Amino acid sequence: MSMTAIKGGVLAAEGFMAASTAAGIRKHGREDMALLFSETPCVAAGTYTSNVVKAAPVVWDKELTDHDHAIHAVVINSGIANACTGDAGMEACKQEAQTVSEAFGDVIPPESVLVASTGVIGLPLPMDKMKAGILEMVPKLEHSELHATLASKAIMTTDTKNKEFAVAFEIGGKTVHLGGMTKGSGMIHPKLCTMLCFLTTDLCISKTLLQKALFEDIVDTYNMISVDGDTSTNDTCVILANGKAGNPEITEENEDYQTFKKALHAVNETLARNMAADGEGATHLFTVHVTGANDKETARTLARSVVSSTLTKAAIYGRDANWGRILCAMGYSGAAFDPNKVRLCFVNDIGKILVYKDGVPVDFDEDYAKEILGYEEVTALIELNQGEAEATAWGCDLTHDYVDINASYRT
Amino acid sequence: MSMTAIKGGVLAAEGFMAASTAAGIRKHGREDMALLFSETPCVAAGTYTSNVVKAAPVVWDKELTDHDHAIHAVVINSGIANACTGDAGMEACKQEAQTVSEAFGDVIPPESVLVASTGVIGLPLPMDKMKAGILEMVPKLEHSELHATLASKAIMTTDTKNKEFAVAFEIGGKTVHLGGMTKGSGMIHPKLCTMLCFLTTDLCISKTLLQKALFEDIVDTYNMISVDGDTSTNDTCVILANGKAGNPEITEENEDYQTFKKALHAVNETLARNMAADGEGATHLFTVHVTGANDKETARTLARSVVSSTLTKAAIYGRDANWGRILCAMGYSGAAFDPNKVRLCFVNDIGKILVYKDGVPVDFDEDYAKEILGYEEVTALIELNQGEAEATAWGCDLTHDYVDINASYRT
Repeated sequence: MSMTAIKGGVLAAEGFMAASTAAGIRKHGREDMALLFSETPCVAAGTYTSNVVKAAPVVWDKELTDHDHAIHAVVINSGIANACTGDAGMEACKQEAQTVSEAFGDVIPPESVLVASTGVIGLPLPMDKMKAGILEMVPKLEHSELHATLASKAIMTTDTKNKEFAVAFEIGGKTVHLGGMTKGSGMIHPKLCTMLCFLTTDLCISKTLLQKALFEDIVDTYNMISVDGDTSTNDTCVILANGKAGNPEITEENEDYQTFKKALHAVNETLARNMAADGEGATHLFTVHVTGANDKETARTLARSVVSSTLTKAAIYGRDANWGRILCAMGYSGAAFDPNKVRLCFVNDIGKILVYKDGVPVDFDEDYAKEILGYEEVTALIELNQGEAEATAWGCDLTHDYVDINASYRT
Repeated sequence: MSMTAIKGGVLAAEGFMAASTAAGIRKHGREDMALLFSETPCVAAGTYTSNVVKAAPVVWDKELTDHDHAIHAVVINSGIANACTGDAGMEACKQEAQTVSEAFGDVIPPESVLVASTGVIGLPLPMDKMKAGILEMVPKLEHSELHATLASKAIMTTDTKNKEFAVAFEIGGKTVHLGGMTKGSGMIHPKLCTMLCFLTTDLCISKTLLQKALFEDIVDTYNMISVDGDTSTNDTCVILANGKAGNPEITEENEDYQTFKKALHAVNETLARNMAADGEGATHLFTVHVTGANDKETARTLARSVVSSTLTKAAIYGRDANWGRILCAMGYSGAAFDPNKVRLCFVNDIGKILVYKDGVPVDFDEDYAKEILGYEEVTALIELNQGEAEATAWGCDLTHDYVDINASYRT
């Protein structure tokens, strides 16, 4: 299949519009609201946090995407998470959707509007500001690359970089576009999905297969990143498909479906990696690649355990090839493997260094290891030599800045 | 039952002796080896790490305690963990035990000698230094409180305080003594036991009941502490009972057994708390007390999840009453509960402040909260209001010093 990375983020696909504004939820006049809109109704699929404490927007969105409502818009705010806010939180979601609906002269129903929030848990949303923000954004909706980027910035919290990505590919002789934006830097250890992720495509596809493709792909993308082991109350990953590419509708798991899945994976993997690299306080993107496992779940479990290990993350920060902590994290992961068959390397663009083989350490050049670990991206390559399955997890190092950010985030 | 805290640590019980030395495994002439000895053979019980990657000493000890060998001695070193060391690691354990046996003129067999190591993973033990250290310690063995303290210091790694505790209580008209020492500051998230813990008692008890009492008690003590979520390869908790108190042997779960269990719990809880308070870089002992759970396991799961939450730990460091992170950590714990019934307070010797009730935040005085959280010990009291079960977990905050210590521990 031929697939090209393109610009445009959530506006790469035909028929989507976006706007953003500074509604005054966050300080210093920072943009803190975004609106995504498609005049053509969208088939929508969503995955949400597995946290028992679910934020109100998660409950609102899940209800809509579970019941096959056609979706026209998503309204998002940063600064306040609308989590642990009781009945008032649900009422806020309803009012957001109603305000969007009314702003479009009731042409689109409130049940076609998804909502999402990120920020401090427990505070009520300032509804006057939210409503004013929505009314300000609606007339600003436009299909402009600039707006996609502004929207991806407006949903940031402790993120240092906005995250957007898009691809173009062919299905049934038509060019299809798929793009997305994500935010997420702390409280990142997704169990069903990442913090906030919005994907748009002009693909024509049935709801069932859109949902299936999304569910299957997050397992190896957003579910494989970790910043701090804390699974958020607000995790949301939504994909909207408005069908404007004009391809024959995908209604079975044919070759077109497989093409779409590859494109979806490319977008999700890039956005997931970017989130891990921009983890709170991170100085390294830390990738763990496990090969030779007996089965896929074993590979995933081991990769996730290593990438989440506090001690390993601190060692990566210190440019310390402390492979013992990696073996240790594999050992307590709950997955079965034979430590005596493991081969462990650190590898990146600088070079590759073998540190452990056949159950015993390998003598290695500490200076060279420090050089490799000094680079901003490093991969721990773990060869189990037991089977054929593999998996990759992405995370980041544990730094002083992480502690600073989170010792003072709320106050 | 009447129970008194007494001095003496591992030497509080009759018939035990201890010694320590600087064998040159660690730098700067620091004491790095300890030897425990009982002329009277001991009934011994042990629990060990659940990590798949088990250090050689864990394998050696488990073999001995599982097969009811009478135990006379424990030799311990800090500096090197003897983990991931392959066959050479097992050979090192054997040589340690043989050296102790020979030093006693072969009166005690190598199979009566337990070994334990803590420190860097992957390095080989320097056997010449280890043997010389053992030969130096044997003539120094003495029943002296000073030696108990020196031994508890020799097994420290990044610990800042030695940890020992002992109690006296009555069984069958005889005074029984039970004492212990532990070490552990990082890589602490025990699944079966804590890093290293040695308990001695002059109680007369069957092997079966000694093991049962130990297994039952660690679930609510060492298994309920967490410093960094990393379960070590070397976790070991051993109890030796030499029977010298002269009480009628405990062979059934009678009143005497219950008395012993209470004493055991008192010692284990104190040592576990002390380990958590001395977590690497810690400025706070952070206790999480969950009440009103439907069952004990739910209470334990929730308490452990909160005490292990990276974001909550950073907030405690920042004296930030960020209760949203606590609700969040409860939510992703996997345990079932109703967030709308939860009542959450921060409490300690300074005061008590309610921050969340019935599914919504409570307005509280931020200055007062900061004052409470400024104290070196703070408890999050989580009332679930659903059942009768409760549990307590102990941990510490996540600080800059934690990052410093672990970014440079090995090198």
